[in-house]
Amino acid sequence: MKIGWIGTGIMGASMAGHLLDAGHELRVFNRTHAKARALIDRGATWCDTPAVAARGAEVVFSIVGYPVDVREVYLGDDGVLSAVESGAVLVDMTTSEPQLAIELADLAAERSATMLDAPVSGGDTGARNGTLAIMVGGEDRAFRRVYPLFEAMGSTIRLMGGPGAGQHTKMANQILIASTMIGVVESLLYARRAGLSQDEVIAIIGSGAAGSWSINNLGPRIASGDMNPGFMIRHFVKDLGIALKEARRTSLALPGLALVEQFYQAAIAQGLADRGTQALYRVLDGLNTAEPRADGGDRR
Amino acid sequence: MKIGWIGTGIMGASMAGHLLDAGHELRVFNRTHAKARALIDRGATWCDTPAVAARGAEVVFSIVGYPVDVREVYLGDDGVLSAVESGAVLVDMTTSEPQLAIELADLAAERSATMLDAPVSGGDTGARNGTLAIMVGGEDRAFRRVYPLFEAMGSTIRLMGGPGAGQHTKMANQILIASTMIGVVESLLYARRAGLSQDEVIAIIGSGAAGSWSINNLGPRIASGDMNPGFMIRHFVKDLGIALKEARRTSLALPGLALVEQFYQAAIAQGLADRGTQALYRVLDGLNTAEPRADGGDRR
Repeated sequence: MKIGWIGTGIMGASMAGHLLDAGHELRVFNRTHAKARALIDRGATWCDTPAVAARGAEVVFSIVGYPVDVREVYLGDDGVLSAVESGAVLVDMTTSEPQLAIELADLAAERSATMLDAPVSGGDTGARNGTLAIMVGGEDRAFRRVYPLFEAMGSTIRLMGGPGAGQHTKMANQILIASTMIGVVESLLYARRAGLSQDEVIAIIGSGAAGSWSINNLGPRIASGDMNPGFMIRHFVKDLGIALKEARRTSLALPGLALVEQFYQAAIAQGLADRGTQALYRVLDGLNTAEPRADGGDRR
Repeated sequence: MKIGWIGTGIMGASMAGHLLDAGHELRVFNRTHAKARALIDRGATWCDTPAVAARGAEVVFSIVGYPVDVREVYLGDDGVLSAVESGAVLVDMTTSEPQLAIELADLAAERSATMLDAPVSGGDTGARNGTLAIMVGGEDRAFRRVYPLFEAMGSTIRLMGGPGAGQHTKMANQILIASTMIGVVESLLYARRAGLSQDEVIAIIGSGAAGSWSINNLGPRIASGDMNPGFMIRHFVKDLGIALKEARRTSLALPGLALVEQFYQAAIAQGLADRGTQALYRVLDGLNTAEPRADGGDRR
């Protein structure tokens, strides 16, 4: 199949690679050419703009950074919608705004194309191994047409509803992670203050009713002081901002989310934007210590 | 072995039953005689006071309601410490205050006995099946002596440190559950407001980085409106109060815990004390709806 692919960052490069492996013809665009190099070496065709990548493609995928980037990729002067083929399916896999997904789906329909929103979870590991969860919003017919391509990238693939439903599902996912993370952090802070071994506490509480992916995977990193990013705070804060914006739009009070988002904002203020989401521990630890901080966040 | 057992509520009756099954001689006391009936029918000896249950026993277990009950059972006029045998091991399995555990361990030592704090997690199912997690604080020698008895009741048994360490570990467990629960509730509120199927959202987000025991076990109950207690809000609020008290004692700010505890207090104010912890959903749902509430909490 002739496929346009826009966005070859860590996630996008792995995901597009699976489509190349499956024998598809890929036309790629990325803001930074160097990051598309490996795909081009494997046979993908470089395109100078999103419009060029979309031209003649039956399906166009995008996975970029922020909603503003999604807007540029689709609606810019050289954007996908300026060149999209009638009958094509457009799939934005960026974690982005539900309202933007709806707007783009309407604009695509005006050009006789169909747009799906299909954000993922599973991180760089899931992207590399083709085991992502893919949460899709849009029309069933387009979903079924693209499904074999999704299967090359993910192991859990669900159509959640109409346009925006994929993004909404991803927001539900991030809202759940946010409060779980403050639970993990406060639990481990309490444990340390009480003189317990954090690792031993994780070992006993992680398998019961308090258990979660976060305590079992990020808890041990916190215990060992490893704040390297599985998922960067910078990106998580973007997602939480989208969730809060959408909640405000629908007058939905989510006090837990609002509180956690504030501490993640503090993390950014403290220079932790490029650390993993588990570095929330640093913020709450800092709140509970008398030591001055002079090193921008690298103290435990 | 000759064993004293104090407290034959839902948890205690199952746990004591496993010791009877293992062939031990049980001397039981409970505030309400009727709740000890089944154990007496199976061969346990009824005792009129905790002191009588403790007399001549090599090991005494207790699992009662609140810290004030623990205090009465051990320090009351007819309490365990008034009659404890020299060399006996006392094991309080109530979820109670770490500082009380330390105080009782000291008082037991004055009477040449040893006290362990050993709260559990796993609920009535874990108690019935003998698969509880048992978090123990106290001396290693006493722990090893009682270990075979713990094995009859639990499948994960750990000595976490000195007196109070079992209670501290249980508090870390409850702190983690508290914020995870608000995440579950807000995630599902968001999903419903966005027009998604809560069950479908749980199915896709419950297996990835947002996954937890709470979303996978209590999420579906919330989605179906089932607020029956696995674990009652009344008891959870007791535990969160102990955690907050201990955090205050050590000047540890836990803003996530404090927020969630307030919403659980609201749940009690709304008549939800005897509903399951998942009924936190009702409180946050009520916060986000214009309908007046007249039924004390049974509206979805």
